[in-house]
Amino acid sequence: MAASQKCLGKGSPAPGPVPKDHIRLYSMRFCPFAQRTRLVLNAKGITHDIVNINLKNKPDWFLEKNPLGLVPTLETPSGHVIYESPITCEYLDEVYPEKKLLPSDPFERAQQKMLLEHFSKVTPYFYKIPVGKTKGEDVSALEAELKEKLAQGHMMRLRCGSPDRLSPWTNCLDDTPRLKKWTEHMLEDPTVKATMFSTDTYKVFYKSYKEGNPDYDYGL
Amino acid sequence: MAASQKCLGKGSPAPGPVPKDHIRLYSMRFCPFAQRTRLVLNAKGITHDIVNINLKNKPDWFLEKNPLGLVPTLETPSGHVIYESPITCEYLDEVYPEKKLLPSDPFERAQQKMLLEHFSKVTPYFYKIPVGKTKGEDVSALEAELKEKLAQGHMMRLRCGSPDRLSPWTNCLDDTPRLKKWTEHMLEDPTVKATMFSTDTYKVFYKSYKEGNPDYDYGL
Repeated sequence: MAASQKCLGKGSPAPGPVPKDHIRLYSMRFCPFAQRTRLVLNAKGITHDIVNINLKNKPDWFLEKNPLGLVPTLETPSGHVIYESPITCEYLDEVYPEKKLLPSDPFERAQQKMLLEHFSKVTPYFYKIPVGKTKGEDVSALEAELKEKLAQGHMMRLRCGSPDRLSPWTNCLDDTPRLKKWTEHMLEDPTVKATMFSTDTYKVFYKSYKEGNPDYDYGL
Repeated sequence: MAASQKCLGKGSPAPGPVPKDHIRLYSMRFCPFAQRTRLVLNAKGITHDIVNINLKNKPDWFLEKNPLGLVPTLETPSGHVIYESPITCEYLDEVYPEKKLLPSDPFERAQQKMLLEHFSKVTPYFYKIPVGKTKGEDVSALEAELKEKLAQGHMMRLRCGSPDRLSPWTNCLDDTPRLKKWTEHMLEDPTVKATMFSTDTYKVFYKSYKEGNPDYDYGL
């Protein structure tokens, strides 16, 4: 659903208004936070379009919509703007009642939110470890911290999350067999597959990212 | 409501089970995140008890309930444990429907959540600036960053937040007159007042905190 459009940067023409009965996602193809919103859009079958943003060189019209310049950002036909990935996901689940992703029981809802929050704290390791490796640093302490955080997450109930982000790090999952199995299972899920790229593609993107010149359009 | 109990540390006896029709908050009197939950408990008039935790020396029974050892943590009579301050606040608002604090409209709900998230990013400045001042460092750059973040928040719709945290920093609010007015107004709110200490008390606590020996029970 238009997730394969080249990114728009400073000086680009603004996209037209959001069509009626659509919702628009401002995204970046390799952003793990925007991917959460794409997972929800796909899982719920919501009619949407995607505008990819050049995060190093953001268009003025994007900063007018969201002065914080963050992706994911949702825009509705009436011009409402919603950002912060957990908030976009909850908004979509509330507005589009078909195929509810969050449980209706308040405690079960809270459990899902706690799990998501926990894994948000894991995300920085997915940058720190490869960047450290590239620099030839000893990343064993970081890997141990990551394993500990995964083990803590493992104690929590697994029903949501961004399994795709774990795929290149399966060596860190050996101590958490249930989490490993869940990750493998989720990687076979059609909705998850639809929001993912190959490991090689991620490698090329993160190499360009680490070099300070992210290739947002790699593979298009 | 028992917020004035001395904190419990390692080796302390575990508190009894949560009474029926009660909810328990594990807190720390000066923690701005736990204060959010106390604001919601007070604003909604929820019957609760509070167990203050020595965060430098946490009891084993607390770590058994929440291995992450975070405050605020809620515990229900059935043993459900909920943590992360925005999640505890939403849980309370969902479970106790009287005096709803979040709007029912999904976009208005999202606006409140975005505002809270934004001000969460402001919180670290409330530590960095006084700590820098204590060390005799130039904090003007930090103050400028704080003012910018407050100005961004100012553009958002103000209905929730932790106004009390802003009180000692009103000099940073001169550029944001509506936010300043809102803060002054909220500082007169009985619910806000009930969860606050005097500026002098905060000063003593933060001095002890900066010195590495936080006086969690100061003033009791």
